[in-house]
Parts: sequence; structure tokens; C-alpha cells
Amino acid sequence: MLWEINMAQKPSIPKGTRDFNASDVAKRTYIMETIKEQFQIYGFQPIETPSFENSDTLMGKYGDEGDRLIFKILNSGEFLKKISDEDYNQKSESLITPKISEKALRYDLTVPFARYVVQHQNDIEFPFKRYQIQPVWRADRPQKGRFREFYQCDADVVGSKSLFQEVEFVQLYDAVFSALKLEGVTIKINNRKILSGIAEVIGAQDKLIDFTVALDKLDKIGEDKVKEEMRGKGISEDGITKLQPLFTLKGEFGEQIESLKSILSASEIGLKGIEELEFINTAISNLELKTAILQLDVTLARGLNYYTGAIFEVSAPHGVKMGSIGGGGRYDDLTGIFGLKDMSGVGISFGLDRIYLVLEELNLFPSTITESIKVLFINFGQDEAMFSLNAVTKLRQAQVKAELFPDAAVSGKQRKKQMNYANRRNIPFVVIMGEEELKSEMYTLKNMVSGEQQTVNFDQLLSLLK
Amino acid sequence: MLWEINMAQKPSIPKGTRDFNASDVAKRTYIMETIKEQFQIYGFQPIETPSFENSDTLMGKYGDEGDRLIFKILNSGEFLKKISDEDYNQKSESLITPKISEKALRYDLTVPFARYVVQHQNDIEFPFKRYQIQPVWRADRPQKGRFREFYQCDADVVGSKSLFQEVEFVQLYDAVFSALKLEGVTIKINNRKILSGIAEVIGAQDKLIDFTVALDKLDKIGEDKVKEEMRGKGISEDGITKLQPLFTLKGEFGEQIESLKSILSASEIGLKGIEELEFINTAISNLELKTAILQLDVTLARGLNYYTGAIFEVSAPHGVKMGSIGGGGRYDDLTGIFGLKDMSGVGISFGLDRIYLVLEELNLFPSTITESIKVLFINFGQDEAMFSLNAVTKLRQAQVKAELFPDAAVSGKQRKKQMNYANRRNIPFVVIMGEEELKSEMYTLKNMVSGEQQTVNFDQLLSLLK
Repeated sequence: MLWEINMAQKPSIPKGTRDFNASDVAKRTYIMETIKEQFQIYGFQPIETPSFENSDTLMGKYGDEGDRLIFKILNSGEFLKKISDEDYNQKSESLITPKISEKALRYDLTVPFARYVVQHQNDIEFPFKRYQIQPVWRADRPQKGRFREFYQCDADVVGSKSLFQEVEFVQLYDAVFSALKLEGVTIKINNRKILSGIAEVIGAQDKLIDFTVALDKLDKIGEDKVKEEMRGKGISEDGITKLQPLFTLKGEFGEQIESLKSILSASEIGLKGIEELEFINTAISNLELKTAILQLDVTLARGLNYYTGAIFEVSAPHGVKMGSIGGGGRYDDLTGIFGLKDMSGVGISFGLDRIYLVLEELNLFPSTITESIKVLFINFGQDEAMFSLNAVTKLRQAQVKAELFPDAAVSGKQRKKQMNYANRRNIPFVVIMGEEELKSEMYTLKNMVSGEQQTVNFDQLLSLLK
Repeated sequence: MLWEINMAQKPSIPKGTRDFNASDVAKRTYIMETIKEQFQIYGFQPIETPSFENSDTLMGKYGDEGDRLIFKILNSGEFLKKISDEDYNQKSESLITPKISEKALRYDLTVPFARYVVQHQNDIEFPFKRYQIQPVWRADRPQKGRFREFYQCDADVVGSKSLFQEVEFVQLYDAVFSALKLEGVTIKINNRKILSGIAEVIGAQDKLIDFTVALDKLDKIGEDKVKEEMRGKGISEDGITKLQPLFTLKGEFGEQIESLKSILSASEIGLKGIEELEFINTAISNLELKTAILQLDVTLARGLNYYTGAIFEVSAPHGVKMGSIGGGGRYDDLTGIFGLKDMSGVGISFGLDRIYLVLEELNLFPSTITESIKVLFINFGQDEAMFSLNAVTKLRQAQVKAELFPDAAVSGKQRKKQMNYANRRNIPFVVIMGEEELKSEMYTLKNMVSGEQQTVNFDQLLSLLK
């Protein structure tokens, strides 16, 4: 068989993918469960969609680059039969691919969600608040922090244009990061309408993308280079002069809003954007955030083609070098691609892998979550083991994570080996249940950190371990 | 673009896959979390492996049929370039597939686990108790209850030959099904060595598979047909006569063991199998199961090529028509295929989809798990909504799942619509926060089941909803 040629090679996994050990899983689960809990408290409902979709559901939704990065699944059986010899002989990937592949792995959670809403629209109560935490796959070039399989955590609500949704998403970000003890994150907010307004005011409506792409780089390349890039894209000197106040926009949310009002006084859409931002800011000021900071950032333009109202991005606390750890915004036509018009939505997502790195860097994972078990019973032989298993069973029934070492240690050396096993697995307690203990039906409990030992009966053992 | 042809069609998902709505997810999560909790109490550690593996990790491990059912992923980019024209022109799937596909979706959790153990052997403490709950994919013909994407829930321990592991797995099955309130499941147990012993005694060692495949059908086709099949496979009349006591094996575990001892008195391996079963049965009798029944079933032969010792299968309580809801056994060479010898293991799995169906049929899902939120605040307009959101925020901080309807209901009809929304989402309480209530800073809480209403202050509201 062709496949067996490489069987002797060292086992490995495809590049860009990861194995997760117990400690990795525990930490990732901690983040996901914390997010999930807040999603639920905020009234979001979980859905799950299949890992692969029909290709025509995904293709053409993410641009040409996206299409290339979608993992396609080969048809089963005699998949070449369907191709005419004429087509086949051209040996062209773009011609052959759609004929040998009808399914593709999920590229994000947004398009499957849109498909879900349209497909199940008659069973859904709108406004529909859903969350979805599932892996996605991209054939990206793997690099540090970029993987070919990774989880997305999204919450969206569709079917309402109310700005209370935006307010709630700011609160939700604050609630999640506060629950993760990641204090001092900045929730940056902007509005597509403000960017449109600015473009209008400087007479560059047709250059909205070029203009925002340049503006987005202000932090990185500075004012002069941004202006240079704008000139290069054909934005007029007069327009750039009108932009001047933007480059020096400073102060509190409210002060910035006032400056924007004067810049955008001639733009109806720009003023609408300001009004929306003011509503959100006022509401958040009244409700108060726990630990996050809400900040206006007019340079924020992520996913501009897509967003029509609010745009969000969350950055880690000061001092932590990391790209955005969350983002989102309002879109007015999520489901149009599948034939359902006028379904406005707004959503946010959490960057699981980056949040993981930040919590790791700041040492914010609770130490208990990676504890494997509470107590290991050393195995001194058949009779002792049988007696131990009885105790282990009762401990487990009382929710204590307990284990009996399965193999009997007949020599001192083997007992040492079992103690080392407990040490290496970070098991905090060991029970020594030897001949003596068996006779007296007592348990010698050893604290593996302090080295302290005490001999106790079962009830005492249970209360010490509970 | 080729892909856009079908864009107007009604959105759908690939056959054999499923969308899960909030209630589905809640019920599935309930089962998985219950299993996971017991796995952890029993000392099993979670791992996760990538959804796709290198093809040579998976191919050739599940037989020819398995190879066919593995979903292969198309290489990215110019994947046809690698194929010589000579090969290409043969237009042969078996020749082309390995050249255009280097990765494949996980077919089960066992082979990835074996690969994991070998790859990470230097970081693992043995015995290694791991659990893994992840989806797998098979290009099977979809039919009732058989899907192309489904979850497997496995727990295995490798690196110990101790029979205490088998004892623990019986306890673990009992613990999980008891926790799910699914009482009266039967844990059937057999041992490969007993089947080998029987084959030896009847002089059919070389026909072990044929013989066990026939015996396995005893329940379904009856004694006469089983004998007929055995004759057809060339098992001697003398051998079949020797088998006679097997067909009428009855009584308690202990009685059956005694009958087996006389049948297998001449087979060393058979007696070894009996000894193992006796050890497990004695231990379980001492430790006592909560709600499950342990039963010897010498016709049980699942996965025979694979198992070398104990074989487990769990069936639903009497009266529920359903195939096995769990199974497993001991295997002596899990990791040999990847070059690591002498790694004995034993494991069990839970059939999530079938357990789901059984719990549904017996109405065993707790009613609370599908409750979306506890309380919806009707939205009477901007001021009332802002005041409501303040209360909603405080309720959420106290872990109460609460929501404000995002859009203002300015007419009675719209208010009715919001009440209906609460009804259809099964929300048990609604808060009516109108002009009157706003003035007095009171909340009118309506119980959506009884229709009862009371007007209360915030502290009362919180304590009623908490």
C-alpha cells in the first residue's frame, strides 16, 4: 500500500496544528468556560454548526485570498469519473478543484452563522442572540501565534438595530475580562459612519478604503508618513489640511466627541455616527464598567468592508505587547448573501490564543485548574490495594479526585517510583496504605509539599481532602 | 467565478452533518460535562489532538473499508504540479489521491491517541490516564443515527497491565450512568482469552474470528442458525457439541464462571481469562455498583482483532431499544504501529448520540438545562430602558441570566409582541418597567407560567430571581 511507506517515520502532526496536553486543555477550558458563562448571563444561546459546509456556502465570501485559504475536502469514491477527459487534460487546479471537492472546512463562524440564520429562520425568535465557540481552519502560512486550526469565540445578535446591543457588548467585554482577572483592558470604539463622514468632508468618498487604511497606521508610522500615503492615494492637500485636527485628537471621550462635531459639522452621516457613539458612551458612563476602559479611537477601521456602524477592538492592558484580543462591530447585511435581506446584526469575538498568552504572561491562571488529582494511594500489594480502592471509591463518591496506583510496589524502590510519579504529576497528597495501616484500618496521609505525615481514619481522611 | 453559480439556492448543510440549536447544545453539553466530571474524579487527564492528521498517520490503520471512509483534505495551491504527466494521465484515484492530499480528518480518537503517546512519550508519566472528547469524521453512508461528523468520548490508560484498571472502568461506567440518572444499564464483560480458549478446546484456533462472529449473533438469530453458520465455516460437529454448554450458559456471574471452568479446563489461556474475569467480578462485588449491573456475556466479541483481554459493552436499561451505548476493552499493543512496543492499555468509550436518544426517550434531561434566561425586561422606551438596563446589569453581576428587549415598544401591540417573544423562548419571568414603575423606581415582575404579578423594589426583585 502506498500509505505504508512512511509508517516507520517519527510520528508528527501537520504544520500549524497543535496537540494540547492536560495543562493546556485545563487553561484553554478555563478561558472558554469563563467566556461561556458570561455569554449565558447576558442571554446568548449556544449553537453549533458542522465542521465542514458545502463549498458554495463558503467560497466567494472571503475574497480571493480567503478562497485560497479554505481547506477543501476531497470527494469520496471515484471522484475523477465526474470530470470530462477534455477538462481533465487541462490539468488546471481552478478547473479541477470544484469537480473533485464539494465540501470545505469552516473558515470562520460568521458565514456558517449567516447560513444557519437563513436556513432556520422559521424556528428562530428574533432578535436572536447566539454564541458559538468552535474551531476554524485556514491554510495560512503557519508562523508564531498563527495556526491552521484555532478556536473562535463569537457572540452576535441579529434582528435588532437598537444601540442597546452595542452598550451590552461593551459591558460583556468588561464582564469577561474582569471575570478572567485581566484588568485594565482598553475597549476601543469607532463608527463606520464617522469614517464615512470624514471621507465626505475631505471630498474623498470614493477613497474611503484608501483613506482609512492610511489612518489606521497612525500609531505605527506617525502623522507624516500617513499624510504621505494619503497624498500618494490622491487625497487632496486641502482635504489633508481639514484632517489636521484628527491627528491631534486628545482627551476624554467627551472632549474628542466635541472636536469631531466641529470637524464633521457639514456631514449628516458623520453627525449620525457621533450621535451613536455619544449614546453608547453616556449609557456606559451611567452603568459603569468594572475594570475595562472605553476609549474612542477614530483610526480604528478593522473589517471596514463589512461593518456599517460601531467598530470595536480590545487591547491588552498597558505593558503587554500583543495585538488585539477581541474585536467586532455592527453589520447591516449579514444574511443577504443567502437571500435574507434587512437582517441587521452586531457581534464581537474573543481571541482565545492571544488571551491565553496574555494570562500566561501576567500569571493570571488560577493555580488550581492544572491540578490533576488530589490524592494518590501508593499500591503495597493485592490486599492493601483492594482496601485502598474501597477508600478511593468512597472519596470519589464525595467528589474528591483520587487514584490508586494500579501496579503493586513490592520493593522499596518501586514505592519510591510511585512517590516520584505523584511528584511529577503535581499530586498534592499521597496515602501510604501498608501492612500496618491495613491491620489498623488507618491511612497515613502525606502532604507532598510540606512532607508532613499523619495517620488518620477514613472520616478524617475525607475531611482533610474534601 | 465557478462557485457563485449556486449562491441563490436555499442554504443547506452536507448530508450526514447537523446543526445544533441552543436546546440541542445544552443537552449534549449536559451529557459531556457529566462524563467529563467523572473522568476527572477518576484521575483521567484531558488531551486534545488536531482535527486533521498527516495521512500516513491514519491510512492503513482501519482496514481497506476504513481507508475509504477517511475524509481526505486537498492540498493547497498548485497541487497538480507535483504529479508527473505520466501518472496524471492514468486518471486513477488510488494513484492521484496520495499526491494531491497529505492530510486527513480524524477517523477516531484511538489512533491519534497512539500517535500522541509515541510522539510525547518523554513528557508523559506512565501509567498515563487520558480522556479525550472530540469530533471524528467518517464518509459513511448517512442513515438514521449514523452521522458523518460525531463526537467520541474516550478514556484510556496505557502503561499498566494491572486488572485494577478494568475494575475502575466498570466503576466509571456505573458512576457516569448513575450521574446521568440512567439507572439499570447492563455492563457486559467478556475476555478475549476466553474466546481463544473456546476456539482452542473445539479445535478451531485458526477460525477464531469466524467462530466469534457466529457466536456474537446468538441473541439475534438463535442457537440453530449460529450452529449452521459455524458448520458453514468448517467448524467440526465434535467442536460444536463441545460448545453446547455455552448456548445454555445461565445464572449469576459466579455460576457462569463455574460452567466455563469445566468447558475450558483443558485450555491454559481460557483459564487465564476466567481468572481475570473472577478478579474483576470479586472486586466489583466488594466495592458495589450504584445502579449498573455487571454481567458476563461470552458471546461478546466487539473489536476482536484489537482487544487482547477484557471486552466491555454497555446496553441501555431493559425496555429501551438501542444498540450499545458504550464499549471498550484491553489492547496489548496500542502504540506498536508507531514504533513503541509493549505499551499495554485499556479503555472505554461512551456513545454520545445514543445516550442522548436514551435520555430523551426516558425523559431524563433536567428541565433547567434548556432554560434560556430567567427574566426579560420589556422595553417601554428610552428612559425606562436605561433604568431597566441598570437593573439588568446588577442582576447579571449576581449571576442572574437577564435581558432587556433591545427595541422600544411604543404601542400595546409591540408590548404584546415582546411578551410573546418571552413566551416562545420559555423565559419564566418578565419585568414590566413602564412610566409608573420608573417614577416609583419599582419593578412589576410577572410569572409567565402562573400569570401572577407583583410590584417590588430591586432587592426584592433580586431575591425573587436569584
